[in-house]
Parts: sequence; C-alpha cells; structure tokens
Amino acid sequence: MAPDEIHIVRQITEGVLRGEIGSLAKAITYTESTLPKHQQIASAILENCLPHSGNSLRVGITGVPGVGKSTFINALGKYLRTQGHRIAVLAIDPSSSRSKGSILGDKTRMSDIAADPGVFIRPSPAASSLGGVAARTREAILLCEAAGFDRILVETVGVGQSETKVYDMVDVFTLLLLPGGGDELQGIKKGIVELADVLIVNKADGTQLEKARETAKQYQMAMTLMPPGKTGSTPKVSVCSALHEPDMAVVWEKIAEIADGLVAEGKLLPMREEQDLQWFEEYTGFLLHRKWLENESVIQLREELRNRILNREISPGKAAEILVSGGLPSI
Amino acid sequence: MAPDEIHIVRQITEGVLRGEIGSLAKAITYTESTLPKHQQIASAILENCLPHSGNSLRVGITGVPGVGKSTFINALGKYLRTQGHRIAVLAIDPSSSRSKGSILGDKTRMSDIAADPGVFIRPSPAASSLGGVAARTREAILLCEAAGFDRILVETVGVGQSETKVYDMVDVFTLLLLPGGGDELQGIKKGIVELADVLIVNKADGTQLEKARETAKQYQMAMTLMPPGKTGSTPKVSVCSALHEPDMAVVWEKIAEIADGLVAEGKLLPMREEQDLQWFEEYTGFLLHRKWLENESVIQLREELRNRILNREISPGKAAEILVSGGLPSI
Repeated sequence: MAPDEIHIVRQITEGVLRGEIGSLAKAITYTESTLPKHQQIASAILENCLPHSGNSLRVGITGVPGVGKSTFINALGKYLRTQGHRIAVLAIDPSSSRSKGSILGDKTRMSDIAADPGVFIRPSPAASSLGGVAARTREAILLCEAAGFDRILVETVGVGQSETKVYDMVDVFTLLLLPGGGDELQGIKKGIVELADVLIVNKADGTQLEKARETAKQYQMAMTLMPPGKTGSTPKVSVCSALHEPDMAVVWEKIAEIADGLVAEGKLLPMREEQDLQWFEEYTGFLLHRKWLENESVIQLREELRNRILNREISPGKAAEILVSGGLPSI
Repeated sequence: MAPDEIHIVRQITEGVLRGEIGSLAKAITYTESTLPKHQQIASAILENCLPHSGNSLRVGITGVPGVGKSTFINALGKYLRTQGHRIAVLAIDPSSSRSKGSILGDKTRMSDIAADPGVFIRPSPAASSLGGVAARTREAILLCEAAGFDRILVETVGVGQSETKVYDMVDVFTLLLLPGGGDELQGIKKGIVELADVLIVNKADGTQLEKARETAKQYQMAMTLMPPGKTGSTPKVSVCSALHEPDMAVVWEKIAEIADGLVAEGKLLPMREEQDLQWFEEYTGFLLHRKWLENESVIQLREELRNRILNREISPGKAAEILVSGGLPSI
C-alpha cells in the first residue's frame, strides 16, 4: 500500500473509532467501491475495526411496502435515543433505486432522527446482485459497531430474497404487519412469517386500533401452531402506532426480551459465529460462481444449455455437469 | 462408448419405456453410481427417457419423525391403485441410514403396496451431500415418469434442508401434522408450514379424532394469516386417518385440486420450467464449489480462514475474497 493510502486508512480508522459519522460514512463508501485500490483501503480499515465490533444489538425490520417501516424506524429510533443509545439505520434492497415508490433508509421519512448526531442512516448499497448487497451491509454493521453505535436497525422489504439475508445477519428479526389479517401478505415471500422473532401490527391508531388488536390476537394464536422462535418459545405479537410514542417502549421491550433470552441461554455468540461462517461459505460460493461466469465461453455455453433444458433435450443435472466440466478458467 | 455399453443403454432404455420395474431400478442405480463409466451410461439412458417424462403428478410429503408418513403413503398408494394409477414412491433423506430410527421409503412399512407390480418404491440415494441426493432424486422422478408411473410421491423428513429441496421438485407439497396443535414442530425447519400447499392432520382416529378436527380448524384459521398458496388461495387443511380408507379419497381430492388449479391457470408448465432452470443453476454452483474444494491447498486455506474468522482477525467477506482470489485450480 502506498504511503498516502496508509495515511487514509489510519485517518479513517481513528475517526471511526472516535465515533465520527463522517469517517464512518467514508469507510462504508470504500467498502462499496469496485476499484481494487479502494477495496484494499476498505479491507485494511475493516481489519482495524474488527476487534472493536460486536457490541450492539442487531435488529432486522421487514414488511411489505406501505406497512410503514420508515415511520416506525423513525419513532423507534427516537425512543432509543431517549434511552441513551446510538442508532444506526442500514437498508438492504437489491432492487435499489427502482424500489416501487419507497426508498429504504430514506432520511426525509425519518425527520425526527435524521439530523441527530447520535443517529447514522445509510440507504441500501447499489450493487448488481443480492449477494453483493448483503456482503456490503454486513461490513457496514461491523463498522457502525466499531464507531460505537449500539443499536443497529437493518431495514428491508419483505417481497424478495433480501429478508432471509437480513435474517442471517441480525440477532432479532421483526416483521411489521397491517391491521386486517394477512391480505397484504399476497406478495410476501413464503416462510417469512415463520422466521419472525417479533411480529408487530403497525398503524394501530384511530379507527384501526380495534382491528389491529384483533389481528394481533389472531396472529398470536397462529404462532402457537408454527415452529418456535430462536429462544424456544412462541414469537410475540404486539400492536403499535408509530404516532404514539409510548408504544415504542412496549415494542422495544419485546425485541429486547428475545435478545436477553439469547444472551441468558448462551445462544447469542454461537449464533453469530454460525452466521459468520455461513456468510463466509455463501459468499465464497457467490464470488466463485460470479468470477466463473465472467468468462465469455461459459456464458455462451450456459445460454445454450438453458435452451436445451427448456426443449427437453437434456436434463438440468446433466447440463450442469457439462457446464462445469467445460473447465474452469483460471483467474 | 464401447459396444457393450451401448447395448446396456439400449436394453435398459427399452425396459424403462416398457414400464419394467427391474430396468427402472437398474437405470436409477446407474445414476447413483460415482464411476465415470456408469455415469456415462446413466446420462445416455436419461437422455433417451427425457422426451417421455413429465406425464405425472409430483407430490411431496413431509412431516416430523413419528407423524406416520410411511403408513400414510401406504394407504394413499393403495387408494391410488384402486383408481388405476401407477405409483412411484421416492425418498430423499441426506442423513440416509443414520435417520433417527425411521427409514424413509421403507417397504416393510408399506406392506399393502410393496409387492404390487404397479408400485415402485425406492429409498433415499446414499450420497455425501444434500445437493447430490436432490439431484439423484430429480433424475429418478424423470425415469419413473418415462416408465409410465403417473403419480410420484416424494417422501422426506421435515427437520433439515431436504424439504425445501423437495418443494422445488414437486407440483404439490404436503405437510403431515399430529393432532394437538404444533408441539411437534419444535424440531421442524422454520418456513416449512408456509410452503405447504396441503396440510393434513394425521392419526385422526379413536380418541384423537376430535382433537385432530380441532387442530385442523386452528390451522385452517392460521393459514389465512400466512402468504397464499401457489394457486393464490389459502392452503387447505384436512384431517385423515391412514387406517380409514375413505379418508384417502378426501385427502387426494385436496391434492388434486391444487394440481388442477395450476393446470387450469396455465401455471404448471411455467412452474416446472422454472424448477428445471433453478435446478440447473443451483447444481452448477454446487458442482463448481465441490470440484474446487477437492483441491488440497484450497481446503487448507479454507480451514485457516475459518479459524481467523472465529478469532475475529478477519471479516468473513474478506476471507471469502482471499479464498477465491487464491486462484481456481483447473479441472
């Protein structure tokens, strides 16, 4: 590494460890860069910060568009600030800018916390694939922790693959629902409800309050018929209005209860280690497959084989064998 | 291919297409062999059979150990035989012989159908990894179809990863439950209940009948709060006793209803094509990763990196980059 690069690494690392938002933002930007030079800098900063990471509660928040995620995070963040916590809000959305009208991690929807120096908000990294987006977000979590943010909220939209990725990088996974009972789940990925550690029926205010309470009751009964949560007990269902501040204390209590349970049972650390190793294996497979698919002849053969599969000329298993035995280009 | 191999391929192919169980069993055995010579023979047979495959209804059946899968399949198979169908029972179980006391595809538990020439039963292939087991089972489905078996039942146990693999290879995914309401789901993988197209509360007989009916009612309500099934409607929940023959007609009606719905809406073929392409992509990634991990230096570096991750010396993402940029051995 050149002397000026070493200088940048030292400067940013020190800034991050002092908890400076500007340095944190720069560090994350380096991790998101595709320039080899920037990636080297990012790696060095990450390595320096790693021993200082881990001291946070990592919470995933998902739900369909329109369920009120940003308003909820704004209110939750505000409440956590009154409790003396430093909050990082990260977003993960592989569809990025083209995200059906709602931008995740949108500061204008989080006006109560956006200007607070104890809050760091970062929208989804732009990347061409979910594997890349997820990897960057995981690194951002570590950097935020090194900068002293002790409550990390990872926002995602529950209609694709990203929410299972978020599940794999947080301690507590929270699903927001609408009053009314499941109609909005039309577009949601199957299996997500069962992954939730905490379910929250949002928008429980005004004329919707009674309906929300009824919905929560129904979900609470339904959850007893599903596999139990991480701590071995039935996931909790609450109602909440992001417009009603006291609700946030109640919601947070449910989230903290799961985290406390994991700590008390000695499950948190093994779970995080498991997540780290899984990240390593998955990301290795992802990088390997991606590098390999950069090869022009592989791309061509793959297209041919896909067509032959659809024409029922070849079994998908045989096609895969042909593609792989075609030889690996060296990198 | 040598002349004697060409002869074997021709003989077995003709036998399979005539619907001979002996030839079908031999063909599947070739697909399961790891000898390159046998794999060549298997590929040739598969290629010949492929145009004759696809004419079946593929049904996945899962549930925890003790839920009565084998007895259920025995009764269902017996019923389907009275309807003039030819039945294949395949099992997929990555833990194979060490399967906690119960063997999937166990003929002794299917005594009513085991000796019937219109029934073909095949236990789980022995393979070292789930990816391999799943690939072999998919090929077995195609071969069974070419042999004229028009109802394929794929049995698996719902406590690992295999059930999502089965979900990806069948038309209708069925989950067996016990009367009593969810207690047995302690060990089941999260998300499986939501994947089910048809839920069946089994062992609904004797003193358990009322309890089973109540459980079914509860699940039916719970399912309205979950994402809808493949056909866009709420999955159906039935009760059933494998000891009570008329129940099988009712259960099969629910399964057939899903399949008919998929056909009527023109969704079956696109779904199968999607499954085929997904199989191709997944299996490519699997083979690539596996071949690569055969390399001694890769294995060593991988172990080192896993330890450094657990010691918090390196981020999992960086570790993956190091492992992959270590270079791909050529194959």
